[in-house]
Amino acid sequence: MSSHDSLLAIDLGGTKIATALVSPAGEILCQEYVLTLAEEGVEAVIGRMVATIDSVINKAGLSRISFTSMAIAAAGAIDSDKGIVTHSPNLPGWRDIPLRQMMEETIGLPTFLINDASAAALGEHCFGAGRGVNNLVYITVSTGIGGGIIIDGKLYTGVSGSAGEVGHMTIDVNGPRCSCGNVGCLEVLASGKAVAREAQRLIAQGVKTRIVDFAEGEPSNVTANTVAAAARQGDALALKIVSKAATYLGIGIANLVNIFNPEMIIIGGGMAKMGDMLLDTARKVASEKAFQLPFEHLRIVPSQLGDNSAVLGAAAFARQPGTQS
Amino acid sequence: MSSHDSLLAIDLGGTKIATALVSPAGEILCQEYVLTLAEEGVEAVIGRMVATIDSVINKAGLSRISFTSMAIAAAGAIDSDKGIVTHSPNLPGWRDIPLRQMMEETIGLPTFLINDASAAALGEHCFGAGRGVNNLVYITVSTGIGGGIIIDGKLYTGVSGSAGEVGHMTIDVNGPRCSCGNVGCLEVLASGKAVAREAQRLIAQGVKTRIVDFAEGEPSNVTANTVAAAARQGDALALKIVSKAATYLGIGIANLVNIFNPEMIIIGGGMAKMGDMLLDTARKVASEKAFQLPFEHLRIVPSQLGDNSAVLGAAAFARQPGTQS
Repeated sequence: MSSHDSLLAIDLGGTKIATALVSPAGEILCQEYVLTLAEEGVEAVIGRMVATIDSVINKAGLSRISFTSMAIAAAGAIDSDKGIVTHSPNLPGWRDIPLRQMMEETIGLPTFLINDASAAALGEHCFGAGRGVNNLVYITVSTGIGGGIIIDGKLYTGVSGSAGEVGHMTIDVNGPRCSCGNVGCLEVLASGKAVAREAQRLIAQGVKTRIVDFAEGEPSNVTANTVAAAARQGDALALKIVSKAATYLGIGIANLVNIFNPEMIIIGGGMAKMGDMLLDTARKVASEKAFQLPFEHLRIVPSQLGDNSAVLGAAAFARQPGTQS
Repeated sequence: MSSHDSLLAIDLGGTKIATALVSPAGEILCQEYVLTLAEEGVEAVIGRMVATIDSVINKAGLSRISFTSMAIAAAGAIDSDKGIVTHSPNLPGWRDIPLRQMMEETIGLPTFLINDASAAALGEHCFGAGRGVNNLVYITVSTGIGGGIIIDGKLYTGVSGSAGEVGHMTIDVNGPRCSCGNVGCLEVLASGKAVAREAQRLIAQGVKTRIVDFAEGEPSNVTANTVAAAARQGDALALKIVSKAATYLGIGIANLVNIFNPEMIIIGGGMAKMGDMLLDTARKVASEKAFQLPFEHLRIVPSQLGDNSAVLGAAAFARQPGTQS
């Protein structure tokens, strides 16, 4: 394997760090995961990133000098031009961290830095559900809700690199408080956190449900995953909670259809694993609320790359002509 | 004046038709208005468009053959590639009207067709508040609310030409019914129609106000303009109604800031004539609700071209390389 073949790419998330060797065709040749443990501080996290990089390189029988560059997709507000993690709600303590420079000094390779949802959008565009689709919006529905935008076949990141925060559009002016400080954002109504919160609230009210059975009998253990598991077994409350989140997601999609008139909306993130249980309702609501013409030109599809969309997108980002390292 | 100097441009709105001779630098050399009177049918409206064209040409001492092409900005859903007015809520009876072909046959000039809000965005980008600004969103706040998007210095119209319908993003899932069939759209909460409706509702409830004085004593005559006039005189109810609309507008702006991270948001349309009375509140609300970083990179400004933004944008559209006539 020569230095021209593969690229080192890292997905730095709030929960885990995924490090991969990615071929130019978007194949993952080798991959490792470690927990982020962000609470241990920036230095410790960077140490773990470096360790997985070396581990992946060793596994592949290569060395650092085999590569010409590396790419990092990171959760949070990213200044790609300057290579800085401006701040990151899921990485406590990360504020104005010059991650690119720190990695370049440590690893000795030119490094590219990109927001993880933008990377995921680019990944799906280059290698996944959005191949050949020039105008698309990618929505990651996970613990939070983020997004990435492809316009005219290129990643659109806005004037300061933070475009695509579709999870933070207000869809209910009288809605609950969101972690961003605003109220009624799509994220606080349709995310995994919203599903878990709603389930816990209704369980506390004594509503009959099997959701708790999937959380080892402990209501505080209830997550979107346990709600999804109960819903798959036909639990009425779980189905209702999923349907409510999907309805809000459909409203968010309708807004994006009217604003972007995109060819495709791709739904990724942990919640997308619910599949049609989530997407069928979201599609139905979006079709009722969006303008008919743009809706007729739209496909709403699940992510094809799943957990790998960001790491593959980071690799694609580093390979784009004109991208700054 | 040679045929290369100026361009015929028409703004076909629900209320009036504006026809102008536009110089390459975006100066209006000659202009005429007639009422649209859409209720008289498509043929009659086209007849009036043709009459103003000939009148403007005559005034300028030219003839039809002095021109190489003409441009039309029209209200409604426009298929620019095919030159068709697909449908138009403000032009009753206009459904799948091949306006480009009809005008080409009648006038004998290659004709370009574009949605009026998209044209206005392009006009402001080429000749107005958005000169030199490559990423911007234009919002027209008028009887309804529409918009246009400039990305990387180019008009973005989506996969089927209808992008930019920012007036039809849901911001209140439990809000009132909008004319588009959805509920809680920005348009039904912050448009001129919304302001008039709210004023009439409160007047009917007997709230003390001078608004009716500005509507010749007749509550059913109350419009956004009369509310604005009363607000300028310090009328408490009028100020409250304007502030409420501005608050909703600020929420819509915040959504667009988080989604687009644009360099500029331009507010045009009749309501923009309220100036800082509207924009100060909208700015304040947007600053509280949008993410801080993209907001710091944003300017929210009024339209510079006012009523001429669409006609000037139509002219710019016809001059763009690659635009299809």
